Amino acid sequence: MNKGVLEKLLAAVASGEMTVSDATDSLRHFDFEDIGFASIDHHRSLRKGFPETIFGQDKTADQVIGIMEKLAEHEPVVMVTRLDADKADRVCRRFSDANYHPESRILIKSKGEIPVTGKGEVLVMCAGTSDIPVAQEAYLTSVAMGNRTSQIRDVGVAGIHRLFVHREAMEKASVIIVAAGMEGALPSVVAGLVNRPIIGLPTSVGYGTSFSGLTALFAMLNSCASNVSVVNIDNGFGAGCVASTINHLSL
Amino acid sequence: MNKGVLEKLLAAVASGEMTVSDATDSLRHFDFEDIGFASIDHHRSLRKGFPETIFGQDKTADQVIGIMEKLAEHEPVVMVTRLDADKADRVCRRFSDANYHPESRILIKSKGEIPVTGKGEVLVMCAGTSDIPVAQEAYLTSVAMGNRTSQIRDVGVAGIHRLFVHREAMEKASVIIVAAGMEGALPSVVAGLVNRPIIGLPTSVGYGTSFSGLTALFAMLNSCASNVSVVNIDNGFGAGCVASTINHLSL
Amino acid sequence: MNKGVLEKLLAAVASGEMTVSDATDSLRHFDFEDIGFASIDHHRSLRKGFPETIFGQDKTADQVIGIMEKLAEHEPVVMVTRLDADKADRVCRRFSDANYHPESRILIKSKGEIPVTGKGEVLVMCAGTSDIPVAQEAYLTSVAMGNRTSQIRDVGVAGIHRLFVHREAMEKASVIIVAAGMEGALPSVVAGLVNRPIIGLPTSVGYGTSFSGLTALFAMLNSCASNVSVVNIDNGFGAGCVASTINHLSL
Amino acid sequence: MNKGVLEKLLAAVASGEMTVSDATDSLRHFDFEDIGFASIDHHRSLRKGFPETIFGQDKTADQVIGIMEKLAEHEPVVMVTRLDADKADRVCRRFSDANYHPESRILIKSKGEIPVTGKGEVLVMCAGTSDIPVAQEAYLTSVAMGNRTSQIRDVGVAGIHRLFVHREAMEKASVIIVAAGMEGALPSVVAGLVNRPIIGLPTSVGYGTSFSGLTALFAMLNSCASNVSVVNIDNGFGAGCVASTINHLSL
Amino acid sequence: MNKGVLEKLLAAVASGEMTVSDATDSLRHFDFEDIGFASIDHHRSLRKGFPETIFGQDKTADQVIGIMEKLAEHEPVVMVTRLDADKADRVCRRFSDANYHPESRILIKSKGEIPVTGKGEVLVMCAGTSDIPVAQEAYLTSVAMGNRTSQIRDVGVAGIHRLFVHREAMEKASVIIVAAGMEGALPSVVAGLVNRPIIGLPTSVGYGTSFSGLTALFAMLNSCASNVSVVNIDNGFGAGCVASTINHLSL
Amino acid sequence: MNKGVLEKLLAAVASGEMTVSDATDSLRHFDFEDIGFASIDHHRSLRKGFPETIFGQDKTADQVIGIMEKLAEHEPVVMVTRLDADKADRVCRRFSDANYHPESRILIKSKGEIPVTGKGEVLVMCAGTSDIPVAQEAYLTSVAMGNRTSQIRDVGVAGIHRLFVHREAMEKASVIIVAAGMEGALPSVVAGLVNRPIIGLPTSVGYGTSFSGLTALFAMLNSCASNVSVVNIDNGFGAGCVASTINHLSL
Amino acid sequence: MNKGVLEKLLAAVASGEMTVSDATDSLRHFDFEDIGFASIDHHRSLRKGFPETIFGQDKTADQVIGIMEKLAEHEPVVMVTRLDADKADRVCRRFSDANYHPESRILIKSKGEIPVTGKGEVLVMCAGTSDIPVAQEAYLTSVAMGNRTSQIRDVGVAGIHRLFVHREAMEKASVIIVAAGMEGALPSVVAGLVNRPIIGLPTSVGYGTSFSGLTALFAMLNSCASNVSVVNIDNGFGAGCVASTINHLSL
Amino acid sequence: MNKGVLEKLLAAVASGEMTVSDATDSLRHFDFEDIGFASIDHHRSLRKGFPETIFGQDKTADQVIGIMEKLAEHEPVVMVTRLDADKADRVCRRFSDANYHPESRILIKSKGEIPVTGKGEVLVMCAGTSDIPVAQEAYLTSVAMGNRTSQIRDVGVAGIHRLFVHREAMEKASVIIVAAGMEGALPSVVAGLVNRPIIGLPTSVGYGTSFSGLTALFAMLNSCASNVSVVNIDNGFGAGCVASTINHLSL
Repeated sequence: MNKGVLEKLLAAVASGEMTVSDATDSLRHFDFEDIGFASIDHHRSLRKGFPETIFGQDKTADQVIGIMEKLAEHEPVVMVTRLDADKADRVCRRFSDANYHPESRILIKSKGEIPVTGKGEVLVMCAGTSDIPVAQEAYLTSVAMGNRTSQIRDVGVAGIHRLFVHREAMEKASVIIVAAGMEGALPSVVAGLVNRPIIGLPTSVGYGTSFSGLTALFAMLNSCASNVSVVNIDNGFGAGCVASTINHLSL
Repeated sequence: MNKGVLEKLLAAVASGEMTVSDATDSLRHFDFEDIGFASIDHHRSLRKGFPETIFGQDKTADQVIGIMEKLAEHEPVVMVTRLDADKADRVCRRFSDANYHPESRILIKSKGEIPVTGKGEVLVMCAGTSDIPVAQEAYLTSVAMGNRTSQIRDVGVAGIHRLFVHREAMEKASVIIVAAGMEGALPSVVAGLVNRPIIGLPTSVGYGTSFSGLTALFAMLNSCASNVSVVNIDNGFGAGCVASTINHLSL
Repeated sequence: MNKGVLEKLLAAVASGEMTVSDATDSLRHFDFEDIGFASIDHHRSLRKGFPETIFGQDKTADQVIGIMEKLAEHEPVVMVTRLDADKADRVCRRFSDANYHPESRILIKSKGEIPVTGKGEVLVMCAGTSDIPVAQEAYLTSVAMGNRTSQIRDVGVAGIHRLFVHREAMEKASVIIVAAGMEGALPSVVAGLVNRPIIGLPTSVGYGTSFSGLTALFAMLNSCASNVSVVNIDNGFGAGCVASTINHLSL
Repeated sequence: MNKGVLEKLLAAVASGEMTVSDATDSLRHFDFEDIGFASIDHHRSLRKGFPETIFGQDKTADQVIGIMEKLAEHEPVVMVTRLDADKADRVCRRFSDANYHPESRILIKSKGEIPVTGKGEVLVMCAGTSDIPVAQEAYLTSVAMGNRTSQIRDVGVAGIHRLFVHREAMEKASVIIVAAGMEGALPSVVAGLVNRPIIGLPTSVGYGTSFSGLTALFAMLNSCASNVSVVNIDNGFGAGCVASTINHLSL
Repeated sequence: MNKGVLEKLLAAVASGEMTVSDATDSLRHFDFEDIGFASIDHHRSLRKGFPETIFGQDKTADQVIGIMEKLAEHEPVVMVTRLDADKADRVCRRFSDANYHPESRILIKSKGEIPVTGKGEVLVMCAGTSDIPVAQEAYLTSVAMGNRTSQIRDVGVAGIHRLFVHREAMEKASVIIVAAGMEGALPSVVAGLVNRPIIGLPTSVGYGTSFSGLTALFAMLNSCASNVSVVNIDNGFGAGCVASTINHLSL
Repeated sequence: MNKGVLEKLLAAVASGEMTVSDATDSLRHFDFEDIGFASIDHHRSLRKGFPETIFGQDKTADQVIGIMEKLAEHEPVVMVTRLDADKADRVCRRFSDANYHPESRILIKSKGEIPVTGKGEVLVMCAGTSDIPVAQEAYLTSVAMGNRTSQIRDVGVAGIHRLFVHREAMEKASVIIVAAGMEGALPSVVAGLVNRPIIGLPTSVGYGTSFSGLTALFAMLNSCASNVSVVNIDNGFGAGCVASTINHLSL
Repeated sequence: MNKGVLEKLLAAVASGEMTVSDATDSLRHFDFEDIGFASIDHHRSLRKGFPETIFGQDKTADQVIGIMEKLAEHEPVVMVTRLDADKADRVCRRFSDANYHPESRILIKSKGEIPVTGKGEVLVMCAGTSDIPVAQEAYLTSVAMGNRTSQIRDVGVAGIHRLFVHREAMEKASVIIVAAGMEGALPSVVAGLVNRPIIGLPTSVGYGTSFSGLTALFAMLNSCASNVSVVNIDNGFGAGCVASTINHLSL
Repeated sequence: MNKGVLEKLLAAVASGEMTVSDATDSLRHFDFEDIGFASIDHHRSLRKGFPETIFGQDKTADQVIGIMEKLAEHEPVVMVTRLDADKADRVCRRFSDANYHPESRILIKSKGEIPVTGKGEVLVMCAGTSDIPVAQEAYLTSVAMGNRTSQIRDVGVAGIHRLFVHREAMEKASVIIVAAGMEGALPSVVAGLVNRPIIGLPTSVGYGTSFSGLTALFAMLNSCASNVSVVNIDNGFGAGCVASTINHLSL
């Protein structure tokens, strides 16, 4: 309920159209968001192309399809994350405009091209080939949220010279997501090279003392470079969201 | 060595002023950054007001003063973090334009006002009064790096209504740093309210299973809101740097 | 054996109705609880509707049926927790009055309606849809133990306004169980809103640094609200028991 | 702003005493709690004797005195936790009705006797003499919040027979707080003896694999008794609050 | 090489049958155990009935059979631990005097009754029904090593009175193994009741913060009773060996 | 109260010497241990020389002296563990027959020689010189409890040959306590050499990944030798108690 | 681009064959490695016999075959690690000169005998039979990299005398890899016996507090011998590489 | 007992000077090391310049002086590690040829120059200025053990270009020790640049999730470069020993 609605209600009281008692009840039953944070939804409608996202992991294909049908009435883009191939198969048969990306287990349903609304470019880098599925989740999330997005693969720190051939791509980006497992050192190195917000994306790649990604996570949190922040292990979706939020800022 | 310098050298070869052999030697001794990443320093000079930062913790007052004297020749702003009060006292006696902030143990030396170069506004929020020193480190870092910065204190999730009176401040900000110890829940709540990049800043406040900030850190990494990224425990300086980097983007 | 019974026995000895030898034997064979803690079982018989509970996880269907047959002679309500669907199927064929709840893997066998013996109302809230199975285990436990029980689902802290529409339900409850995984922040927020005993129920929902529920558990233990206590991860049964014990107090 | 205030405002609009514009502004500036959760403060005023609590650890004596002076205008009881002896000394010189308990580092300032408002009795038990300071924090918190409170000390599980002489005290209580460090087994044993809500209060007593209380905490969370819930390590204040909240329920 | 062999060699030197040089070489190539610790094997042959033990987990049925065939030439008793049922099936078809215990996955092959060589009695207690497989491994190990062994099941600390009916059995034993998962409190209680060496045997029974037996292990290591020592989680075999070693001492 | 006492009481009732009321009261006031576990104290009085032990760490010198005065009325030997030198100084001035051992911070007060009641010999070995204080705590505990006790120092596994010169001492012992920090390997090696109960005593000696003794503890729990059980880190007192309990068995 | 190429370019500028502008552009586009670290690849070609290694775990058989076909054009030896038997089967059908080692899941394709290029001998020891697969991975890696390599199996510290019969083999080696799980003590013992670089190779063999190899790893890092360094858990390949690198040094 | 002694004894038997019985007894009492591993000490005397090392941490100045006096009779070089400045002061007053290095707390006493016996060169690199004390411990250890040793400081991965100016130094070294705290990434990068054995030396530099060096340690163990092995946190002495052992190999 915005200011206009509130004035109308009060005017109705002033004019006698509405009794004091009825008005009291109406105001008493305001949902919270009617008062102050209606802006939340308003913002969402302004962010054209921002997809509704469904966490597919614990849902049946039928549940996913049901939610998608409802969302698709209003949303041009709908994204499902962590969706197994067999469920995706059923979803794709239902929606002809759905595309499934098996590597990263993401499904994107889009009415036509996803319009680019982000202002700069998001770059997704990853250290090893095993990090690609997580990096890909970040990449597709960024794309689905309306960002020009590029990616660089296989630039591990043990062959540091491979990194330098990509310096232009790094300098062109507004935000860089750096996915790495094992020792998780790549974000530090990249953050030392370019003055951009670097989003460290630790992956669970490794064995033994990689602790399913904890070592990479902690290494990134301890980066000696000061422009690195971090998301949860294997959280490609989150990294893509943070990057997209930054890339949509009005600065 | 920028492009201009390179052209001059080559022109000298072309004109015979310099022998091929001498030019070869000169080029052989290029530091790496002269060839490709000169942009790093170039960028730095473009970021007016971006202070050189000294980690004061393991240094003597004399060492800090020595480094500051050298830096002050070229840099208008110099910042020292984690500087104890007694060392700060000696430094302040040496530099009349140095100011020490005992709460956050930061010292800032600035020739005149620090010019605002960031484009939007950085907001630093913190959950409890015990989180203030860390939040303050983030605040002062952001200010010293040329950002309009404001702050909100004492808005813990157990009294959630206190948070809502600050909705305008939250919506006005470009980037929000949220410092919290103990259960570390505030970043999730804030991130659900406004569509901005939220930088979770876990603090070591708490006891028992707070594990010196680990619980807050892990809670933030597990945020059910998708626009949260995180820095190391008590790393107010890092949070300020990430926020400033975002706030200086050209979007 | 209470004081009266003891006096009777001694009087029988005094009057010669009972020999010293027989009395000695009687007293020697007191179970411990006959002396002091007979109240334990006595209490149990007073708590009508309080079900005997079988932990189904490591038992065969035959074992479960066997125990149930024995318990059903005396107990109107028997509950089995963590029972797989296939075992439940066999149990339900044996007992026509058994109902299986596949989501929470609980089976309840009840002769007629379970009478409400608790005095107030237990409310079970949960943060996300993935927390529902654990929340449901708490809900059914509470119901089976004779409590009026209601539930609220999907009120995560990242969309805090959804929580406020339930304020009446929260204020009406005597005890509130709050199930949450990931960052486990919901109990803190709820505990700040209502002055009731809040039982934090961490769930193993999440990945990476959720550590199978540890982060949620630790966050709840660090709640900045002071009316929160906590049970083990995924221990819906325990949360229901604690809530029921509180709700059956004579205050 | 309660219903009455709201009706008055609307009546003023209806009668023309207040313009629609002014009323709109008034309503727009409602704090959140005026609309829906005013009940929070209302509740607090109903809980006579419920003390405002100051966490003394990170505050100076002057800060503590300042806050106490402000609170003392309205509150008959003010409690300060984790207050060092030297600070307490200064506070006691300022407030003649303040009492300091050095063992548990709690200071209570009360205008006259603290009235008993809780309905039953809170019992605080502890396993070893080293657990007494934490148990005492729980005890004094419970007393200060208006509960009849008793305590039992030194009933460790390695001398289990010492526990049984206290059976009457255990059965008389409405809520039992059980403090234990090291292996943390006492809450399980007590919970098996009496059908009351047991609040496990792990202490940091021990060495080596006691991990500063973690082992006791985890043992309590794994209690094979189902009526145990737990608070953070050394959190005597929290245990007292939970017990008091239960003991003030209207059942 | 025992003393006799050594004397013969030296006699050969004395008699000139062997040159000094050859004798030097022979002595130089003594295996270590020939000199000093031949007693190790000597001891083993004195411990009649002490079975050779095969860790079955990572071996094929053929490998197990092969080792058993070799051992059976000299050893009256051969034991295989952690042997799956299907492998055990094949082994039992090969050796008619082999018995498999599926609950604890132990196979014992014995030529006739295993003679009792231990001096006192080993008692194996366990807290819950889920701890039985591990307790059974300890029980069968103790039996196979020639100890009179008895067992008591299902005496968890939450129903402490059940423990007391077994006081005679506890006092009769020379060594007591106490298996417990979850909070691991039983060894402390038992150790407080009887003055015997108590071997804590933590099991991986539990979920959440039981950490697959770590909580039980740590609780036992923190026992407030001083006559408790501990073996690895689920190490029933080790507990049985330690108990047997104690029970075979010559005191 | 044994059967005889009970019969006498009942006979007195039967004969009219005692009224039913008095007998009821007598029986009602039985402590638990009067019924079944009086043996506990009886055992203690049989174990001549077994000292009462005071954990000195958290007690003042006055408290220690007070408890000692009370114990000294009945006990020939009183032991205080973890007693700081300054407190010990005061205690020694009060009791002329008290001896303080500063290395292990143990004080023993004994009326004359401590009689040897243990049957065999306890051997305490330690790996490095830094482990001596903990080993010494075990040694003195064993001595104070009436065991012939010897010790071997500085036989770390990195110089394994130093171990072998002590083979006779090892074979002569009934029980061996092996203290080791860092990698904690010594108990495994010793346990492979002699067929005795080995009590692993991990110490907090080391740095980095020694984790204050955790690595040594875990290494000992994983011993590939099967006659090793373990006590808590730095728990020399516990190791001494377990060894003494074994060494006092009637086998 | 080496010095010669650089001189040619400059000469072309000097002679006017190349414009200053074109030369500037050429130099600007140097890959980093052209300037300084071309030596990296050069080195590789000098290390004849050093195999290219493919991490087989996350790749399909087709992917492995594809990469091998490409590598085999230039490399005489190609090694694949962590390759499952079914994939290996397909690879072996494609390359007639490929050999698969199922125990360690390594496949080696070699054109003829692998020439020995290492200078001394690498020795691989392992503590228990369960450690063999990891030890074998180290052994085959060392062989494939051109080292004379021998191995010793089953010399656990609990039967320390078995170790001493291998003293000659230990003293003959240049580098010793010691694989051990459980308590991980073997490297310390070996390092105390011979003055060689010892590479500790922890394996995930064990259960309970072996923590999948962490205990062995930490024990090795805490070795009281000073000539031990360590690789990741189960990283036989890494241990082999380190040993080979040492064994190829020019000293 | 070396071969010569053995021959003499046997000759005495052959000649009848010694009876068979006496010879048998003599041989029976051989210390182990007399038979086989006398080579250990022999080796030590061959390694001229290898200092005896005293761990100074837990010793008094008097104890250190005492041990040094004894060692100095035979050893030209004696090294003391982790020696506090005040103790060092006393030691230096006693030995005029002792030098104390306060940064790394190492004291070296050497009769004249330490001769270089190592074959190649050891290089010690460190990432940040805070890592210098640990790196210095490695450096001085290497020097004291007779190795040509050089060092490079302050080449953190966030300014990767600083690393490349040192490429010649890296390629010239035989072994490289790389000290790093925080994210511990430097060893991976260096190992990717040069084909030498890299010894990762994690330091406890950092805060929060650096976990006192654990994150650096784990990162190094997870290095994507295969020529890295690792020592314990802050174990500069160990790193120096491993490097020296490698550098003294006869290859």
